[in-house]
Amino acid sequence: MRTLGTQALRDIASGSAVLGTGGGGDPYIGTLAALRNAERYGSPQLMSADELDEDAVVVIPFMIGSPVPLIEKFPLGKELKHAYESLSRFLDKPVAAVMPVEIGGVNSMVPLALGSLLGLPVVDADCMGRAFPEGQLVTLTLDGIGVSPMAISDERGNVIVLNTIDNFWVERFGRSLAVDFGAIAAGVGAPLTARQVRQSTILGSLSYAERIGSAIRQAHADKVDGIAAAREATDGFILFHGKIVDVQRRIERGWTLGEAVLEGMDADSGSRMVVRFQNENLVAIRDGEIIASVPDLITIMDVESGEAVTTEHLRYGFRVVVLGIRCDPKWRTPAGVALAGPRHFGYEIEYEPIERRSGAEQSQRSSSEV
Amino acid sequence: MRTLGTQALRDIASGSAVLGTGGGGDPYIGTLAALRNAERYGSPQLMSADELDEDAVVVIPFMIGSPVPLIEKFPLGKELKHAYESLSRFLDKPVAAVMPVEIGGVNSMVPLALGSLLGLPVVDADCMGRAFPEGQLVTLTLDGIGVSPMAISDERGNVIVLNTIDNFWVERFGRSLAVDFGAIAAGVGAPLTARQVRQSTILGSLSYAERIGSAIRQAHADKVDGIAAAREATDGFILFHGKIVDVQRRIERGWTLGEAVLEGMDADSGSRMVVRFQNENLVAIRDGEIIASVPDLITIMDVESGEAVTTEHLRYGFRVVVLGIRCDPKWRTPAGVALAGPRHFGYEIEYEPIERRSGAEQSQRSSSEV
Repeated sequence: MRTLGTQALRDIASGSAVLGTGGGGDPYIGTLAALRNAERYGSPQLMSADELDEDAVVVIPFMIGSPVPLIEKFPLGKELKHAYESLSRFLDKPVAAVMPVEIGGVNSMVPLALGSLLGLPVVDADCMGRAFPEGQLVTLTLDGIGVSPMAISDERGNVIVLNTIDNFWVERFGRSLAVDFGAIAAGVGAPLTARQVRQSTILGSLSYAERIGSAIRQAHADKVDGIAAAREATDGFILFHGKIVDVQRRIERGWTLGEAVLEGMDADSGSRMVVRFQNENLVAIRDGEIIASVPDLITIMDVESGEAVTTEHLRYGFRVVVLGIRCDPKWRTPAGVALAGPRHFGYEIEYEPIERRSGAEQSQRSSSEV
Repeated sequence: MRTLGTQALRDIASGSAVLGTGGGGDPYIGTLAALRNAERYGSPQLMSADELDEDAVVVIPFMIGSPVPLIEKFPLGKELKHAYESLSRFLDKPVAAVMPVEIGGVNSMVPLALGSLLGLPVVDADCMGRAFPEGQLVTLTLDGIGVSPMAISDERGNVIVLNTIDNFWVERFGRSLAVDFGAIAAGVGAPLTARQVRQSTILGSLSYAERIGSAIRQAHADKVDGIAAAREATDGFILFHGKIVDVQRRIERGWTLGEAVLEGMDADSGSRMVVRFQNENLVAIRDGEIIASVPDLITIMDVESGEAVTTEHLRYGFRVVVLGIRCDPKWRTPAGVALAGPRHFGYEIEYEPIERRSGAEQSQRSSSEV
């Protein structure tokens, strides 16, 4: 168990943006909430899954909805507490700890903010090892573990409790409800046992995010390339250097769907890359060929800031580097690929691990070519 | 308290179809469920609201979704019991009785079927005095009484509990969830106190439906006009005699929206009537002029069968009589008209009580002109 200070929280936010592959909302917003709550209620404690008591109950708090109203409403308001209290009524035992559902902008930080508020430790783990746009795309699903009962609430005091037969139904109901709630709502779900956390989640992901964020921060302090530092910290692959020449986005059922078109620069001059997204980046297509796909991570990094860019912040003219990162091995099993691979998102291709698609050669390319 | 035998159940179904103004699903389906459960578990008991103990808790069971799959699934399956049990867990006291949310085909009969199954009496009352297509259009709303907590379940075992700040939010969430559930789901909601039932619902509506159904049945037995009998039993108004020459229907967010066009016959020869519906009939337009509107009741009766026709059964060529019936006085208050009057459904007219629009003259017209 260790206390997460201001710098650790900022590093986690920055690293989560890299692992969030464009989705999960603006990390800045989540950071604000976590920092404010740390100041008000005390810094959050990070614990490893090993430290959980055998009979501990862990719950997963998260926000759903558009990130824009989040900005006005943060730090976390009544909705998260409503949801937490509503779920608690269903539990036989008090909650021992919280943990994130995904590593992405806002939802990595929500448990840290709630941990401060409630004085509960945060488990160093998550359920995706990245961010994904659908609720059933958690490693828990691979082991038949439900994320319900789940309570969802808004600031007005509306509370909905879902108790579903599987995680696909959670996604189905949750998506409509997110739209109905309008702006933003908070959920708390998936009471997990210590054993379930240890066996069926992605362990160490908050500290992984912290290491990435810390590497980027130190690179910036040393006036060296933050993107190179992120690549190194993730053992990732530089997939493309380019300039954004077009961004298409549309909102559908609460998702941001679209693509960014990049014109190659430097070593990639003369090539084009299209990155398609559904909240998160799904595939990277270089000159018509898919060179990286879910469940591997595809992150667009802004050359100027040296930080990951979320889908909603992609703009014409940005100079960017596309970074590919191996997903967790749980996603590379046949069941993992079937659940969250390219076909699930409508791409009729076989999943190929990024290191095979991108080739060893690319992993050697230095981002200093940028 | 009295036992409802087979004939009483059939009469209630037939009368509910008249008061259901085209909506609520096929009364035949509800009747099947109620009859089957009566046979299996014993006939339901009808009690007046006066007979409720002061501290009695009354709940409202109902079905949501398309009536077509209902046919295959009835008699009521696991979903209603799931929903009932899920709601019960929220209650401090055992449930004393059930009652219908509306008087319309299926949902008038659901409490009778569940009453048999659970051995609970059914209160002779409902929350609309008719059927309406939206969940907030209950007289409870006029008195600020919520229909939540409400549990909704399907046969698979998915359960959702809504706990909302008002009935508008129930409708908002419930409508999406009904679509997500796919075919059909059951709900149990609105734990009411005895006082709330007495003060804020429509009392005597099941026995009112029974009287109408009984009058129609007796007319048929006597080989006289069942429609005239229904008019008499409801003190209603014959608005039109005609033949259906066109029916338009579309499904939108779980509603059946559309209109039936009638060509006048007999006394109405040379005139046209359009009846617009959203599950339930909303307005009757005679030669371009609205002559009846919600919250008053507009029912299309089939001349051949002498029974009310639901929206989904309207067909080209049917000879019909359009019957108008006064709504309950609770709907005629300014608050009642604001909640469920023509403007709520997009008709920019003032509500005029049907007896004023249709004129005393029409009320004298005998349906024997048919």
